[in-house]
Amino acid sequence: MTDYISPWMTDELKALRDVARQFFEREAAPRMAEWSEQRYVDRDFWLQAGELGLLCPTVPEEYGGPGGNILHQVVITQEQSRAVEKGWGNNVHSGVVTDYILKYGTEEQRLKWLPSMIGGRIIGAIAMTEPNAGSDVRAMTGKARREGDEYVINAAKTFITNGQTADLVIVAVKLENPEDSDADPKAITLIAVEADRPGFSRGAPLRKIGQHAADTSELFFTDCRVPVANRIGAEGAGFPALMTQMPQERLILAVNAVVQTEKALQLTLEYTKDRKVFGKPLYQQQNTRFVLAECATLAKAARLFLDHCIVAIGEGRLDNETAAMAKWWLSDVQCKVLDECVQLFGGYGYMEEYPIARMYADSRVQKVYGGANEIMKEIIARTL
Amino acid sequence: MTDYISPWMTDELKALRDVARQFFEREAAPRMAEWSEQRYVDRDFWLQAGELGLLCPTVPEEYGGPGGNILHQVVITQEQSRAVEKGWGNNVHSGVVTDYILKYGTEEQRLKWLPSMIGGRIIGAIAMTEPNAGSDVRAMTGKARREGDEYVINAAKTFITNGQTADLVIVAVKLENPEDSDADPKAITLIAVEADRPGFSRGAPLRKIGQHAADTSELFFTDCRVPVANRIGAEGAGFPALMTQMPQERLILAVNAVVQTEKALQLTLEYTKDRKVFGKPLYQQQNTRFVLAECATLAKAARLFLDHCIVAIGEGRLDNETAAMAKWWLSDVQCKVLDECVQLFGGYGYMEEYPIARMYADSRVQKVYGGANEIMKEIIARTL
Amino acid sequence: MTDYISPWMTDELKALRDVARQFFEREAAPRMAEWSEQRYVDRDFWLQAGELGLLCPTVPEEYGGPGGNILHQVVITQEQSRAVEKGWGNNVHSGVVTDYILKYGTEEQRLKWLPSMIGGRIIGAIAMTEPNAGSDVRAMTGKARREGDEYVINAAKTFITNGQTADLVIVAVKLENPEDSDADPKAITLIAVEADRPGFSRGAPLRKIGQHAADTSELFFTDCRVPVANRIGAEGAGFPALMTQMPQERLILAVNAVVQTEKALQLTLEYTKDRKVFGKPLYQQQNTRFVLAECATLAKAARLFLDHCIVAIGEGRLDNETAAMAKWWLSDVQCKVLDECVQLFGGYGYMEEYPIARMYADSRVQKVYGGANEIMKEIIARTL
Amino acid sequence: MTDYISPWMTDELKALRDVARQFFEREAAPRMAEWSEQRYVDRDFWLQAGELGLLCPTVPEEYGGPGGNILHQVVITQEQSRAVEKGWGNNVHSGVVTDYILKYGTEEQRLKWLPSMIGGRIIGAIAMTEPNAGSDVRAMTGKARREGDEYVINAAKTFITNGQTADLVIVAVKLENPEDSDADPKAITLIAVEADRPGFSRGAPLRKIGQHAADTSELFFTDCRVPVANRIGAEGAGFPALMTQMPQERLILAVNAVVQTEKALQLTLEYTKDRKVFGKPLYQQQNTRFVLAECATLAKAARLFLDHCIVAIGEGRLDNETAAMAKWWLSDVQCKVLDECVQLFGGYGYMEEYPIARMYADSRVQKVYGGANEIMKEIIARTL
Repeated sequence: MTDYISPWMTDELKALRDVARQFFEREAAPRMAEWSEQRYVDRDFWLQAGELGLLCPTVPEEYGGPGGNILHQVVITQEQSRAVEKGWGNNVHSGVVTDYILKYGTEEQRLKWLPSMIGGRIIGAIAMTEPNAGSDVRAMTGKARREGDEYVINAAKTFITNGQTADLVIVAVKLENPEDSDADPKAITLIAVEADRPGFSRGAPLRKIGQHAADTSELFFTDCRVPVANRIGAEGAGFPALMTQMPQERLILAVNAVVQTEKALQLTLEYTKDRKVFGKPLYQQQNTRFVLAECATLAKAARLFLDHCIVAIGEGRLDNETAAMAKWWLSDVQCKVLDECVQLFGGYGYMEEYPIARMYADSRVQKVYGGANEIMKEIIARTL
Repeated sequence: MTDYISPWMTDELKALRDVARQFFEREAAPRMAEWSEQRYVDRDFWLQAGELGLLCPTVPEEYGGPGGNILHQVVITQEQSRAVEKGWGNNVHSGVVTDYILKYGTEEQRLKWLPSMIGGRIIGAIAMTEPNAGSDVRAMTGKARREGDEYVINAAKTFITNGQTADLVIVAVKLENPEDSDADPKAITLIAVEADRPGFSRGAPLRKIGQHAADTSELFFTDCRVPVANRIGAEGAGFPALMTQMPQERLILAVNAVVQTEKALQLTLEYTKDRKVFGKPLYQQQNTRFVLAECATLAKAARLFLDHCIVAIGEGRLDNETAAMAKWWLSDVQCKVLDECVQLFGGYGYMEEYPIARMYADSRVQKVYGGANEIMKEIIARTL
Repeated sequence: MTDYISPWMTDELKALRDVARQFFEREAAPRMAEWSEQRYVDRDFWLQAGELGLLCPTVPEEYGGPGGNILHQVVITQEQSRAVEKGWGNNVHSGVVTDYILKYGTEEQRLKWLPSMIGGRIIGAIAMTEPNAGSDVRAMTGKARREGDEYVINAAKTFITNGQTADLVIVAVKLENPEDSDADPKAITLIAVEADRPGFSRGAPLRKIGQHAADTSELFFTDCRVPVANRIGAEGAGFPALMTQMPQERLILAVNAVVQTEKALQLTLEYTKDRKVFGKPLYQQQNTRFVLAECATLAKAARLFLDHCIVAIGEGRLDNETAAMAKWWLSDVQCKVLDECVQLFGGYGYMEEYPIARMYADSRVQKVYGGANEIMKEIIARTL
Repeated sequence: MTDYISPWMTDELKALRDVARQFFEREAAPRMAEWSEQRYVDRDFWLQAGELGLLCPTVPEEYGGPGGNILHQVVITQEQSRAVEKGWGNNVHSGVVTDYILKYGTEEQRLKWLPSMIGGRIIGAIAMTEPNAGSDVRAMTGKARREGDEYVINAAKTFITNGQTADLVIVAVKLENPEDSDADPKAITLIAVEADRPGFSRGAPLRKIGQHAADTSELFFTDCRVPVANRIGAEGAGFPALMTQMPQERLILAVNAVVQTEKALQLTLEYTKDRKVFGKPLYQQQNTRFVLAECATLAKAARLFLDHCIVAIGEGRLDNETAAMAKWWLSDVQCKVLDECVQLFGGYGYMEEYPIARMYADSRVQKVYGGANEIMKEIIARTL
């Protein structure tokens, strides 16, 4: 097949790609098994990534950052996904948390936290989901009460990426006593909490059926006091901020979906051409050929859709519904292709030792997190 | 949803699009029922199209043509597909037959036939398929024997587009006595046959379950004599020629698939927003919304895939396997989306009076002709 | 595969089966093309069927009937479906209309109409659906006003099976002046209308994309007067009656679905074993084998589900939700299998001359009529 | 929905069912987490099961067994699957190994091993699969050489259920020097190897992406000597024996598939009725209702297909192709339903703590082991 080069790729991005690829292959891949066992990625890896400039690519130089844009984040995500599967909460740290501070934070907050985040000395997390409020943000019960110059936070959050290692957690709460007494009582406010504050605690990492190195934890805030200066953005301004960041977050999941799809196809082509069954390569079976021709077509269509979205976000015009399409459809394609590929590996496709098996187990949650695919369809339907 | 404009669209093509759109809506749409009844499109319509410059767009000005390229053909196909569904054999005439003569014909042949084809005074057809040789071209049994300056042709062909009205039929045969006596006896040779030659005859138009206006016929050649000068290209050079034209022919089917998909989505959105069920618009049902969100996503992915191929063919680099992907996947998407849309129309989706019903019946053969989708998967698998 | 015999089959039913099979193959099959052209089945065929005892099998002997039960109706439907595809409104006549009169009619009505219905001299229809009220029965606007001993009916109905030939139409209306002035104004009342009453008229047979011999028409009632004695059942008792009959009507559609599925599989096995492609039977291609193995499995699962339902209805215990499962799932299986089979026939699968093509076009509406499959899912969901 | 009782269920089987259900719920369910961690089921559990008569139900009383039949095995499998998911190699022990000894063993072998197997003091395994010979049994390279009254075995086997705890392993090998020197060199011979024989060793339990308590190991035979009297059946008679047992083994996998499907549906109905989203139970969303109506229909169809097979095997007439249909289709239904159910659980569906998540991860291999589903389709296609 003629080589395809993404239309948004530049020489500068290629250079970043090569750095990232080498780093992930050399430093991350060999340690995935250990990280999976302990259920989180070691701090020293964050520091190494920081030294190489692979964290927080969009932070301007004035805060010590590389001054890149979303395309740099895309490139890093692609290489991370290719080498180590999902499993490292860099996107939340470098994408979500960094962006909140950059866009909605004060100059003081930016100067205080960003330089350390760029270096991996401060790891960020965002605590939004609650046990009884997943996609339904407004059903949240976590709350904060203002007392003088402090907020007193009480909340229990779950499914929090980077929960075990985070030094700075942006928590979404409802204010009990907002300044504007007419404010919508369901409005969400974002507050940054340093992990050494009394009243903050972490549950053990949650045990999942895949993505074992991806630290996902419960976090608890019990009469946890933080200065009012830690609030990110205005009171009650959390929901619009969350919504504004959504297309970008969903795009990053879509990037992961496509890279995993392409990698699965590649692994399965190699395996089926090598594996002999009934005296000839498995790839010579017509069923194998048809299945992989279908997978290759889907992978190509997925890549074209993704690149269309990447170009759009690079130009600042990725709309909410196209991002929703990318999120649901590309995760769906990923799961379909992974399922077909696993089947072609036979028993080995079920063995943790084989990357395809881990990729299969990792894939399933892509249809759920970042907004369940059902939510994506609602978002799309509203615009038709 | 943000408006999307195909990256290959130019002002010149837009002008052509507007001419074509107006023509098909005004002249063709009202006559489709009558043409469906008689099972072919009237000659005067060909002449009208010719006058407007909508036939044979790729023929250079030196032969009286508009001197366009494949993008002009794409634009005309889009409008034709949008207004009158499939059902007019213009693509075979303006694309396939014209291209054979242009690329493989002699200067004499070009001067003799192209001007009349551009005007619609000569309608072209290509006779390849036989009752026992569909996708398997080499199993063909139609043959020609050279006798002096003539070929004597004996062949029975089926599923021939424009069979009823064609004035010039390019027939694919095996030569019984090739000049090169070592030549592959299965090699295919192309010979142009004027419809007024003795020994040429037509069956009645075949009755199909859809695409009723699309003339599809059996053609018979019984000791039919034509001058050797009617041969298109060298002896035995037919198969490579057929293969070279394939990507373009498949792309045109893919164009039809995407336009039909987009139109079906549009019709169904309008219908479900208008139709009341259990006291509210059908579109307010969550199932309807999810189904149409899925269809809209597929339609968007299909369009992006198609536009990728159109750009490639415009630059002369559409490879065989990407064209095969486009053909099978886009026809598959078309059939899936049509099936979902028909369901949402309830009983009306089965009534010929409703465009969606006709589009559904028209769609099914897209997975078969132009190379069955199974053949497409073989083509792709060979390159992986 | 080991021969499978349905557990409900008896020697008596086998005898009926043989009579029916012979009759449909000899008398109906050769005339289907003609009936499809005129869009209804000739009256003399009804009379012939009546003479052989193939109409109204459940009518007791006291009314001149054969005194059978629903299993007799199932057997006749199976043979009818096998020989002539869908396309004859016998099920509405012998199942629906007959049952309404038997169960809800007066003794006078039974004596007046049933003997002629058994003989095919009176053909029955049921007029329920309206242009703006399909699955949503309560949205119906057809109405009747009582004036003395008569009802004056005004209604426009559509999609009415047997509309062209019916002599007796049971029409569903709302009463403008019910005896019980507190009655639910949306309650439905059933009234039998003889086709020679002034004010009754028929539209032309509707043109559909399949099931061409199945007469489906619009019917109009314009100040159409009928005696009060023509009312079937009590005032406002129509909806419960309609609901009670539903499981049986849906079962009959499910019977059709399974027979068509089995027949399609059989035809395609024969074709693919006979058809040579690339030098060997198409059936030797692994893709063909896998597709047909899947179809055969679905056909078997479908038959087992159906037979479970037939046994249940024979014992008077087929519940509404199991009938809904049978209706949606078996029609879904039918459409899936037909689509796969058509594909294996290549271009011939699209030619009306081939039974598989007609069966494909016939199948689509099975997912719609008798309650759209979406409605079936609602019915099931209510009981889970 | 009306309660459905399997037609093969008897009072005696119900009694066994109750014993099994109580046992698995009380003794196994609480220990699954621990067994999953260590990757095998503790010996004492085997002993407990043996005491209750839940092992080797088909062994006649003359060997100390309960003298039951395959239906007893089905009942025990159902309860085991319901309570503890897959994860206990009882079916291999009580079904496969026991049956080989019973049917193909000598009287001496039966007397020597069966009583201890019934009690759980000897655990059986069957070692057939090799790293390079999965479904393709004849590609096996494991071999034995006869030296006097002994066989010297050299083989490496993988994916062996009960590998860690087995006391008696029936290994499939090719004989290097068969008595009949004309014998097919690819013929398979079965030899029982006690685990304390020198030259026998085990690898660590394989790490899988699900079914963590299901011990699956590599086994190695290095110049391992066993008496000729340990051969099960005649020389070269292994393959027919393996084939004869296949329908039964596949049926047991199908039993597991249906029980898991039914349990997933039940769990998801409970969850979605309890879980509130956007102010109302998730079950009130139309999408949820439709998805679960579809799952319920598939579950019902699956149960009916399974019960058809159980009745057949109970009467000794389950053919190979119907068992193959049951194996592929029911495992396919299981995976489809599990995927839909997991999605409805949102993030919880990915947490190991939730049974639905473990059931999802457990399900995937059902489409692979016991003969990959592709092999099943080949088996079916051969008989059509």
